[in-house]
Amino acid sequence: MPTSEFDLIYRYFSSLGAGPAVDLSVGDDCAILRLEPNERLATSVDTMVEGVHFPEDMFPEDIGFRAVSVAASDLAAMGARPIGMTVALTLPEADEFWINTFSQGIAQAVSEYRLPLVGGDTTRGPLTISVQVMGALPADKALLREGAQVGDLVYVSGTLGDAAGALAFLNGEWHPEPDAAEFLLQRFHRPRARVELGRELLGKATSAIDISDGLLADAGHIAAASGVSIDIECGRVPLSSALNSHPDSESKLKWALSGGDDYELCLTLPEEVPTPEGCTRIGRVTKGQGVKVDQDIDFTAGYQHF
Amino acid sequence: MPTSEFDLIYRYFSSLGAGPAVDLSVGDDCAILRLEPNERLATSVDTMVEGVHFPEDMFPEDIGFRAVSVAASDLAAMGARPIGMTVALTLPEADEFWINTFSQGIAQAVSEYRLPLVGGDTTRGPLTISVQVMGALPADKALLREGAQVGDLVYVSGTLGDAAGALAFLNGEWHPEPDAAEFLLQRFHRPRARVELGRELLGKATSAIDISDGLLADAGHIAAASGVSIDIECGRVPLSSALNSHPDSESKLKWALSGGDDYELCLTLPEEVPTPEGCTRIGRVTKGQGVKVDQDIDFTAGYQHF
Repeated sequence: MPTSEFDLIYRYFSSLGAGPAVDLSVGDDCAILRLEPNERLATSVDTMVEGVHFPEDMFPEDIGFRAVSVAASDLAAMGARPIGMTVALTLPEADEFWINTFSQGIAQAVSEYRLPLVGGDTTRGPLTISVQVMGALPADKALLREGAQVGDLVYVSGTLGDAAGALAFLNGEWHPEPDAAEFLLQRFHRPRARVELGRELLGKATSAIDISDGLLADAGHIAAASGVSIDIECGRVPLSSALNSHPDSESKLKWALSGGDDYELCLTLPEEVPTPEGCTRIGRVTKGQGVKVDQDIDFTAGYQHF
Repeated sequence: MPTSEFDLIYRYFSSLGAGPAVDLSVGDDCAILRLEPNERLATSVDTMVEGVHFPEDMFPEDIGFRAVSVAASDLAAMGARPIGMTVALTLPEADEFWINTFSQGIAQAVSEYRLPLVGGDTTRGPLTISVQVMGALPADKALLREGAQVGDLVYVSGTLGDAAGALAFLNGEWHPEPDAAEFLLQRFHRPRARVELGRELLGKATSAIDISDGLLADAGHIAAASGVSIDIECGRVPLSSALNSHPDSESKLKWALSGGDDYELCLTLPEEVPTPEGCTRIGRVTKGQGVKVDQDIDFTAGYQHF
């Protein structure tokens, strides 16, 4: 990409790189980050491709914010303290309006998650955003998918199915009231990674995962890694009032169980631990394997990711 | 991407994740890496897009090896010890032959650089590979672009211009003898990041950078960051015998000075330090700014990256 375009991007992004763990930010061959003594590094990468992971008409500010949230959600699911990220951005053209607006979304996420942007690469090509997040964990603790114990209770944060409801609205399959539509779109465009909740759960939860592919799929990863069954009571699965305004109770339950892109946490806690703030108990860990639900639901006409 | 395709990729990649600094590899929400006491994290990301950074007919094994080498070269330029990497792979389709062959190139690079693959993301879309490398640095040392002192000598590792010569061959502009052509293609397809050299230079070199955009451009970054002039004696710039077989001395010198993609190191050392193994002295740091060469060369018909 010609230097002038690098300059353009550098101008927008170079102010986002400061943080307590950052010794050296954008501008040399590598960034340098510091961990505290007795900490370990948690890291994950997530890629979003236009037309595959988000619609082609999505506002660039939302694309930027959402790409960081999706990656930061993996730090939340490990209980890690964010320390920095890199963004690899492939762009069809360096449109100044696009870069400016996209960078505002990135900047909002940097601030929201205290996740400084310490490095990146900008290349020419079809719009693709890879966000690599780095966080710090105590040497002896992490929220893993394994560790759920028979008898533990199963919780989720927030409400589920909102992103799926938003997609149904965007696809013209459902016409919610304006307030509900606005709420659902906000949930899809601006998911919030549960970073603070993850850190509070560290040392308490016996397992955790973020819900990116849908509750059943992601709870299934906990069940498989822990060698247990996750039994879900459908009546307990928390729905937003916006999603609850949908007239068909089976549709909305299906979205809550199998819709992805909500980026809430699913976690297990010993029975004696109080319910964490913002979480809802939805079931129990039992002997066995896989995920069981207490209703007979036909998922063959299931939700597809965007 | 459907689960079966994830499974396919996981099968090829999951064996590459073990290493001395790896506490938890592919399979949970994040990987977990450990630094030694008094170490810091060095990190960088590089993206390669098919048709932009490499030709569409490039062999997948070479694409994989080269993508890792390009990213690892930034660790070399900082003097960091590799500890792990993530690969974000966007693929138009999950062709088993392609994935198998690509993964062999990744595996060769994992072994070459002792850089375990601890995480990744695979998405559907135009072929794009983002490699994020992580390395460890002592708390008080790093090879930076700043730090070159007036009077220091300027060195490069290996030979320069080979990748540019390979592109001239691929573009039909030059017809070297078969042995020379093979050598040049190997240099372009299989660049070797100078990771060991970088580590040896730590605490000795006053500045360093890897040559990805061409010697003049990258030495220019050292000059700018250090507030000095880099004066290069063209007759000292090391050329391979393959490149030297080109009949026109101005063409090959231009490639060596401005051709990118060689991934050698350019560095500065105090005059009293012996020449590092595999390096050639090419000039001196003087008062001033920018990069000066002792020949009059017309760069208007300059080298373009692939």
